[in-house]
Amino acid sequence: MTHATAMLDRYPAGLGGVDREALARCIEACYDCAQTCTACADACLSEPDVARLVSCVRTDLDCADVCAATGQVLSRHTGYDANLTSAVLQACIVACRTCADECERHAGTHDHCRVCAQTCRDCERACRELLHALG
Amino acid sequence: MTHATAMLDRYPAGLGGVDREALARCIEACYDCAQTCTACADACLSEPDVARLVSCVRTDLDCADVCAATGQVLSRHTGYDANLTSAVLQACIVACRTCADECERHAGTHDHCRVCAQTCRDCERACRELLHALG
Amino acid sequence: MTHATAMLDRYPAGLGGVDREALARCIEACYDCAQTCTACADACLSEPDVARLVSCVRTDLDCADVCAATGQVLSRHTGYDANLTSAVLQACIVACRTCADECERHAGTHDHCRVCAQTCRDCERACRELLHALG
Amino acid sequence: MTHATAMLDRYPAGLGGVDREALARCIEACYDCAQTCTACADACLSEPDVARLVSCVRTDLDCADVCAATGQVLSRHTGYDANLTSAVLQACIVACRTCADECERHAGTHDHCRVCAQTCRDCERACRELLHALG
Repeated sequence: MTHATAMLDRYPAGLGGVDREALARCIEACYDCAQTCTACADACLSEPDVARLVSCVRTDLDCADVCAATGQVLSRHTGYDANLTSAVLQACIVACRTCADECERHAGTHDHCRVCAQTCRDCERACRELLHALG
Repeated sequence: MTHATAMLDRYPAGLGGVDREALARCIEACYDCAQTCTACADACLSEPDVARLVSCVRTDLDCADVCAATGQVLSRHTGYDANLTSAVLQACIVACRTCADECERHAGTHDHCRVCAQTCRDCERACRELLHALG
Repeated sequence: MTHATAMLDRYPAGLGGVDREALARCIEACYDCAQTCTACADACLSEPDVARLVSCVRTDLDCADVCAATGQVLSRHTGYDANLTSAVLQACIVACRTCADECERHAGTHDHCRVCAQTCRDCERACRELLHALG
Repeated sequence: MTHATAMLDRYPAGLGGVDREALARCIEACYDCAQTCTACADACLSEPDVARLVSCVRTDLDCADVCAATGQVLSRHTGYDANLTSAVLQACIVACRTCADECERHAGTHDHCRVCAQTCRDCERACRELLHALG
């Protein structure tokens, strides 16, 4: 349980008609995906076949960084700028899709990659739904 | 619900006898606190009395950055180094305590500061318990 | 002086024909802009007219986060993915332009905003040139 | 060339008698070290003997995260808290020393590790000097 919804409910100004549930879900998905990708990169480093997983480590790290930045941008509402939010969400969608595609290649042999691929797909979907809700 | 425990369970090497529950709790607390502090800094910016809250914004931002770095370090187990983990946890304890102290000053008038102070105290406690469990 | 070029020169695999100078310049611009925007947000907090600068603080913080993530993605070459790099550069261009536009509004009264606006414009340009060089 | 000094010179309030040069040097060292460690982790991933470098990748990533957080905390002066700054600097000293020790083991065979070890030592020294200057 995170405090994303509790903090949205206590934001002292208007949220400009944003879909509050889609926003909270996306913030949580971004932070969760950042953590999961960080852990997946590290788990890959401890696999005996790490030499075959170096692209997976790299994609995990990129996805972690982009999700972290996206989660931070989405946690701010003061001086909201629709163009910036959209651009960041679009980058996050690409990062999550790229990482999910890569992790799925190893999902049968490495269960951390299977969990990470699912988490990336969930985050990709949450970003798409928020992007769509923003109009 | 985050995937911290699911990823710990799938780490392919040994975790060296760490208290797995204390570790998972601390990882989740760090990411949650990073998000909450980011949101509290932004909420302070939208308060009419923002001029009285500038130290709170600053402490929120520091705490968010330190918690994020701590959550990332704790999400890695390959090549574990006890000194580094301890030093990072100690910095995080100070950051969370400092931010909780500051937010508590505004908890009566700004409910986002009240929630943020609690989240910082929870993260401070999770860091202390993990530090203690590490021996 | 940073070590971005020294590290590019020591990357053990091919860089795929990327414009090495444009890449090094963009990496340095992203880290520099992340630092400058972090400092500008904090300088705004200490201005007597902070209440008029809250959008500037927010845009500074967003730009710092997006530039940091972009600098990290650009520092990796293993398993290079052109789509991901392009999407991240595009988000960074929007973040830098948005922050430069906002800081320019205060450039006449606050010299930290003037320096920050210039740094954002430099980073925006470096991202555009790299994006163009990537084809 | 970064803008750390230019931004320090434009901070609108007092800096509390801090050694301005030591502070600027430490900010620059932290951002430089964050970038270098990110690049070193990636370079290790592309080495044929990556399986022997997994602890180096991990330590690089930790050092990058801790240096980034330290650079951010040091870039803020509003509501300065000596305890927090000291705790963060101490964690950064440990992270830089740990990473330098690990990279030095591979400095003879991998020149990116040699450069990274030097950068970590420089950052460790800059943090120690600032910590000492803070009293």
